[in-house]
Amino acid sequence: MSASVDVSSLSIGILGGSGPQGGGLAIRFAAAGHKVIIGSRSAERGAEAAAKLSASSRVIEGTDNASAAEQADIVIIAVPWEGHGELLASLRKELAGKVVIDCVNPLGFDKGGAYPLPVAEGSAAQQAAALLPDSTVTAAFHHVSAVLLADESIAEVDTDILVLGDDRPATDLVQALAERIPGMRGIYAGKLRNAGQVEAFTANLISMNRRYKAHAGIRVTDVPRAG
Amino acid sequence: MSASVDVSSLSIGILGGSGPQGGGLAIRFAAAGHKVIIGSRSAERGAEAAAKLSASSRVIEGTDNASAAEQADIVIIAVPWEGHGELLASLRKELAGKVVIDCVNPLGFDKGGAYPLPVAEGSAAQQAAALLPDSTVTAAFHHVSAVLLADESIAEVDTDILVLGDDRPATDLVQALAERIPGMRGIYAGKLRNAGQVEAFTANLISMNRRYKAHAGIRVTDVPRAG
Repeated sequence: MSASVDVSSLSIGILGGSGPQGGGLAIRFAAAGHKVIIGSRSAERGAEAAAKLSASSRVIEGTDNASAAEQADIVIIAVPWEGHGELLASLRKELAGKVVIDCVNPLGFDKGGAYPLPVAEGSAAQQAAALLPDSTVTAAFHHVSAVLLADESIAEVDTDILVLGDDRPATDLVQALAERIPGMRGIYAGKLRNAGQVEAFTANLISMNRRYKAHAGIRVTDVPRAG
Repeated sequence: MSASVDVSSLSIGILGGSGPQGGGLAIRFAAAGHKVIIGSRSAERGAEAAAKLSASSRVIEGTDNASAAEQADIVIIAVPWEGHGELLASLRKELAGKVVIDCVNPLGFDKGGAYPLPVAEGSAAQQAAALLPDSTVTAAFHHVSAVLLADESIAEVDTDILVLGDDRPATDLVQALAERIPGMRGIYAGKLRNAGQVEAFTANLISMNRRYKAHAGIRVTDVPRAG
């Protein structure tokens, strides 16, 4: 979809990289040749998580969230929803001028499964945009299965990545970045005001996973593959 | 997914059957051998719309919404969101004891495209459930393209149908019903409390359609096809 944007030399920061989703993305982007810097609450935790994710075929660095945000060319937000607003408010300076990819799903869980939490700004991505006026905020990677990402016996991750944002060059870049991971296709899926339902849809995927013992993802039909 | 439920003899009422989505579903269900009764604001309008949709290979009946609701075994709600609550409140008796399939998307439109409207009950489907306590309310068919449904040169409609509901026999039945249309697969996608984001996601599909000149639908990955 975005074959014209060359993103191969970008370094990628992943805040919350010690969690399952962030860690899985770190593995895949490092395997694709990117320099990956994962951030965690402390530099020690970050370095520890990075060491666990590294392998002979790839090097992943780890540090605290602020340093990862500052050092990387592009930054993925993969922290738990609970700490989302507070963390981003503290990183306005470090994230200034950068493309930020929010992939946080504000969900609650009870014995009936997962359900969307109300978000005053409409979505985690819109909250990020409000807190980071000097960054270009996009939203993507909400639906990737952490289990499939971490399973390196799976060569291709069979899923489309829905990319949202109000800035065309930024969404083009994030689509191209998604396509660095074999199997993934980046699809433009609307402006940030339409991010809330994409985040909430993760609750539906969790319902499907429970019913079908699957790691469900989605593919968009009738949109042709990039030529 | 639901091959064990035989729904082939069910008659299907489609309220709002004179609109594009309802009309498209009417064509496809009638072609699959179902008796289809479309409802409209008046019996005359219903009959007129039915005549337009009928063909030598299928018969579609048309009447007013209340008569269609009363006569059919299972009832699809495909009316515009604006009239949704008022109509359903008036049909509590006619719809009692039946499985109701809500496929209404509460969306607003402006020059930026489509966006979800807030719904006090959480979703159109939950509003239907609140107004129809004597019916079993499910939600499905939100994302089908009216254009693809109406284009009879397309033999198979390449999409999964996400089915939501709190009653297992009813969601099984609706999944089986979706699979009467060639190409469609019915997937359980959660309880009614997770219907809001599925309805709202139609705004994202509209964004994709605009960007890619497509009639986007979705397929769920990693859920095996029914054996």
